[in-house]
Amino acid sequence: MFITLEGPDGSGKTTQMKALAEALRERGRAVYTTREPGGTGIGDQIRRVLLDLANEGMVARTEILLFLASRAQHTEEVIRPRLAAGEIVICDRYRDSTVAYQGYGRGVDIQTLHKLNDFATGGLLPDLTILLDVSAETGLARRASDGSWNRLDADAVDFHRRVQAGYHAMAEAEPERWRVVDANREVEGVQAALIEIVTGRLG
Amino acid sequence: MFITLEGPDGSGKTTQMKALAEALRERGRAVYTTREPGGTGIGDQIRRVLLDLANEGMVARTEILLFLASRAQHTEEVIRPRLAAGEIVICDRYRDSTVAYQGYGRGVDIQTLHKLNDFATGGLLPDLTILLDVSAETGLARRASDGSWNRLDADAVDFHRRVQAGYHAMAEAEPERWRVVDANREVEGVQAALIEIVTGRLG
Repeated sequence: MFITLEGPDGSGKTTQMKALAEALRERGRAVYTTREPGGTGIGDQIRRVLLDLANEGMVARTEILLFLASRAQHTEEVIRPRLAAGEIVICDRYRDSTVAYQGYGRGVDIQTLHKLNDFATGGLLPDLTILLDVSAETGLARRASDGSWNRLDADAVDFHRRVQAGYHAMAEAEPERWRVVDANREVEGVQAALIEIVTGRLG
Repeated sequence: MFITLEGPDGSGKTTQMKALAEALRERGRAVYTTREPGGTGIGDQIRRVLLDLANEGMVARTEILLFLASRAQHTEEVIRPRLAAGEIVICDRYRDSTVAYQGYGRGVDIQTLHKLNDFATGGLLPDLTILLDVSAETGLARRASDGSWNRLDADAVDFHRRVQAGYHAMAEAEPERWRVVDANREVEGVQAALIEIVTGRLG
């Protein structure tokens, strides 16, 4: 089972992924957690190029292609082999992030991004995608207070609103794959909701 | 006028580009020379990831997307502005390298690569592409002797033969854009041929 967590920065994906993995392991499941961009040695090198504040002149197409390069490596080197070995793979951001941020956020053609994602992943889609739904203001405020500000955050609240709207549009278009969880509340409540969704799916 | 030089490693592209630029400047032309992968600060970071011998586990799709990312940045940040300013831009490798190496060399679908190139470049094509045509054996021998061996050379002579055949196929398919120059001979003869082709085009 391939599970992805999506949502704006500051929605708690990293914390929730850790808690979800722990809960599944307690239930005897083999779980592998990973993230994008990165997740491989090569992907981490690409991640550093993407997040480097000095690279503010990066054009939109370069950014998209770097995310896709990291995803291609991650999919072949890590995700497919782990899934083939019967593990549950949970990934912090995957192909929907590209559509939300570069498509809905920056206005790049959505169909083109789907095709590029298909090339990068060889057509792999998650079995379950959970949107940690948080208001743009809350997400940005959390990021600013924990010191994890980076180049990708140097965009306005408006941009994050478009991303959020894009996530909702995707969740509505594919209701069997997506679940939307309110992540404005405290950590424990969100955690309980995630565990319920995933264990429900696992049966 | 946008000129690209193509051909296997060891075909003399770097040397010939320098000589061609010098000859055109002597004729009063403004010339900008550049190369791929690289050509920008961001592109040079991507180039280092591509050429790092430690990254031998890089899958074909990752390699393609990294070349395209470097190309997207290079096209928008350097090539288009220089062409708009009226300069002659000469580039050591461009979109045809992806089709020759990853398409003909590694068997990735050629039409997919054309579409990816169109995305990365926004549809920009060179006005003139010169193939420095050299046998695979000569090219590899030159690279080995000058110490410039890198990860991309760690492929067999067979691979280079497929690349060469691909270049010839592309040159035959678009004869108005391509010129093929025999680069097995001494530097001066190749240089004279290039200058004649380009000055002939410039009129």
